[in-house]
Parts: sequence; C-alpha cells; structure tokens
Amino acid sequence: MAKKVLPPQTLLYPVPVVLVSCGELGGKKNVITLAWVGVVNSEPPMVGIGVRPSRYSHELISKTREFVVNLPRADQVKAVEVCGSTSGRTSDKFAATGLTAEPATKVRAPLIAECPVNLECQVQQIVNLPSHDLFLAEIVAVHVAEEVLDGNGQVDPLRARLLAYCNGQYWQSATLLE
Amino acid sequence: MAKKVLPPQTLLYPVPVVLVSCGELGGKKNVITLAWVGVVNSEPPMVGIGVRPSRYSHELISKTREFVVNLPRADQVKAVEVCGSTSGRTSDKFAATGLTAEPATKVRAPLIAECPVNLECQVQQIVNLPSHDLFLAEIVAVHVAEEVLDGNGQVDPLRARLLAYCNGQYWQSATLLE
Repeated sequence: MAKKVLPPQTLLYPVPVVLVSCGELGGKKNVITLAWVGVVNSEPPMVGIGVRPSRYSHELISKTREFVVNLPRADQVKAVEVCGSTSGRTSDKFAATGLTAEPATKVRAPLIAECPVNLECQVQQIVNLPSHDLFLAEIVAVHVAEEVLDGNGQVDPLRARLLAYCNGQYWQSATLLE
Repeated sequence: MAKKVLPPQTLLYPVPVVLVSCGELGGKKNVITLAWVGVVNSEPPMVGIGVRPSRYSHELISKTREFVVNLPRADQVKAVEVCGSTSGRTSDKFAATGLTAEPATKVRAPLIAECPVNLECQVQQIVNLPSHDLFLAEIVAVHVAEEVLDGNGQVDPLRARLLAYCNGQYWQSATLLE
C-alpha cells in the first residue's frame, strides 16, 4: 500500500460530535459543539472533553465543574454548526437554535431536551495542554430517549442516527458490520 | 421525547476503533485494539489513549513512551477483534493476524502496513485514572495510503471505510451528510 507522509495533524476519525451544555439552568448557561471528546475510563465511566481556554464554556465549566454531554442526531446538524461557530458570550444559543434546556438530576447544568442521549458529568481533574484544557469527568447520570432503545433496553445506533466528525465534515454512521 | 434513566455507563458514540502498535520493531512489540481514544489538543496535534495497567501494551508504552495509532478499515474487523481479545504476553499478534510491522520515521514502535492511516505518537504525559491510564501524546508524523486520498490530498472517509465502535458493536460510518 503506497503511502504519503502528511504534516502532523489530528487525523483520527471518526470522532463523535457532541453538544456540551454547561452553566446553570436558571442562570448563565451555554452550549458548545465539541469533537475533541472521548471515553477515558471504564470504572467509573468517565469522559474527557478538550476546550480552548478562550471559550465562554471553558469559563462556565471551570466555575461549576459540571457539564452535560448531549449526543445530537444527524438531523440536528444545523444546531451543531451554530453552537460550534458562535459565542455564548454574545448570543443565547438555546434561543438561536431552538434547543430546550431541561433540568438534569445530579448537576446544575441543563440537559438538551431534543438530544436522544444525555450524559451528566462531574469534573474530576483538569489537564492543561498547549491549546486546549482537557476536562476529565465522571458520568454520573445517563438519560436515553425511549425511541432509540432496542428490545433489550440498549441504544440502537440505527435508530439514534449517529453523528460523526471526520476531517472537517459531518458524517452519519449507520451501517452495522455483518 | 420520553426518556429513560439508565445506570452511569460509557454511552458516548460513535468512537473510533484503532490498532495501537507499540514496543520496538526489532524487539518486543505488540498491537492492542483500543476504543478509548480521542483527540485532546489541536496545536500541536495530540491524542489521548486509555489503557488498563494490566495490559502488556501498557508496559511497553510506559517504557518507550512511544506508540503508533493505526486506523483500520472496516474489512480489518477480524484483526481488530483478535488484537482486542488476546494478550501480547502469550502470543505474537502480528503473526496471529497477518498484520505487517513496518519501520516508522520518528518513533521506534512499528507501523502497521495494512492500515490506511498511521499516526506516530510521542507520550507527553500520563494521567492515572481509576481503571485506565490515559497516555497523552503528540502526533509527530502522519502516513496516509494514497488510495484513500481525494483529489485535494485530503483523506476521503468513503474510500477509507471508517470503522467505529458503538455500544459493543462495530460499525462502518460511510454516509456524508448532505
């Protein structure tokens, strides 16, 4: 297989695209689109999210040490683009996108009602990296829309219509391997 | 949207499934399948990989502080399963899978020749988490098979036939959103 050497770049794919909601339901709150997101630990379940220090959400998450990872469906890609390209300092992204903030159960940050999966997270550690800060957080509560569950009570990715990010483009990943 | 509350679990999806090669080309080497992998920083490009301390690859990566993230194609899922379910302590996974170890350019760990994308990585920091250690590493060299590049020299995910992991199953993510 003939290969080319490319400049060092973040060529890992597919990666999830998520809407992270933060702040407080009744106070300052925001939504940010992130793709530098991954699972980092199994017991207890933990995720890591990379956020640039310049972002408004960085300020809110640093203060509250809580956030919610909301998994969008492929048909919510417009909201994903808006929340990734505007700042919550100058605009209310819930109003701009029509997304609904709902109370969570274990954190003050709101859930996004329209997303089929919501992971409530509490920050355990913040790792400062050159361009991003990596928030390592425990998943303390999980909400899943009944319509994306299969007969065994597990998430059916076909029904959930996964959204993935790959090299600057959004992808729908929806084919189960035989 | 009616929702159910599920026990806290790692319900982030889709996540990439990768083959991480480690050790030294001419010495002890291994391949491990990992899904707890993500981009953590943009400038410089960095990834994070979560590895259980009990794994043989954990020992090799801790010692050399280098590894290669190899992105498998969907038709390599058999090798992905083998490298995720056996131990390099007792078996040679290159021999078991037929994967070929090739020299990298900036690290001693081998590349996997059959994977269309190889990211050479140097560990910058190791974060100890409860069940996994998170290796944060800079991507120092990138190799891409010419057959998966588009006319602009960018990776075309359709040609690369992405492999993703979702809730215990492997998925092929191959539909560009309109």
